[in-house]
Amino acid sequence: MPSYDPNNVFAKILRGELPAYKVFADDKTFAFLDIMPRVPGHTLVIPKAPVRTVLDIEPNDLAHLIKVTQRIARAAVKVFAADGLTIQQFNEPAGGQVVFHLHIHVLPRQNGVPLKPPATFKEDPAVLSDQALRLAGALTG
Amino acid sequence: MPSYDPNNVFAKILRGELPAYKVFADDKTFAFLDIMPRVPGHTLVIPKAPVRTVLDIEPNDLAHLIKVTQRIARAAVKVFAADGLTIQQFNEPAGGQVVFHLHIHVLPRQNGVPLKPPATFKEDPAVLSDQALRLAGALTG
Repeated sequence: MPSYDPNNVFAKILRGELPAYKVFADDKTFAFLDIMPRVPGHTLVIPKAPVRTVLDIEPNDLAHLIKVTQRIARAAVKVFAADGLTIQQFNEPAGGQVVFHLHIHVLPRQNGVPLKPPATFKEDPAVLSDQALRLAGALTG
Repeated sequence: MPSYDPNNVFAKILRGELPAYKVFADDKTFAFLDIMPRVPGHTLVIPKAPVRTVLDIEPNDLAHLIKVTQRIARAAVKVFAADGLTIQQFNEPAGGQVVFHLHIHVLPRQNGVPLKPPATFKEDPAVLSDQALRLAGALTG
């Protein structure tokens, strides 16, 4: 499968060349809100290492990434008073991947509310900013 | 959220009370084919611990589970000559969960082939048996 392209959008976010609604960061991981959320609170968790898919991340880095994902999932359920949670992770175009830096989707869910189709709704920046602050607060509080 | 129900189908599989097309097992993890696959090779990876969702698994157990999931993903891409891979994990009915023992879906994908809707197609047992053997072989070989 293709190699890593350092000009993908998430690489630019990691380098600070593009802004993001940051939720969490540590030495190996970064999490931020999807600006086209499929549900309120739609968060992306990514490794800082330049890896394209789940197939090529170093196993210990993947283990760390999922632990951070769990922390964010727990915070998202609280902040959004969610009834459930969906986690998705897409690899290569055939697998649904659009940005070619490994990412995990964390989607807090409400009973009776379906996921919007991908990339169909652009959220208000003020809403995203408020949600990111509340998620970050729940993670450190 | 509700507590763990030890009479769920996957708990019965873990206790050997129901059969499964086994792909992999270690002291903490079990993997087997979905008998109603959304794509050929649709595999479920579960912890042996009695946990309902990703919110309540012990973090180190989750880390181990995702490492096993990565190994199975790599094997599935080889065995099914996949162009990509989709990983899904559903929590609580609002999140898409139907069986209430934590499980990760591993879905090898082919270009242009959508996922079948859940639980709409029952695979031939002979096909599942052959696929499970090939996946198990790729994991040990």
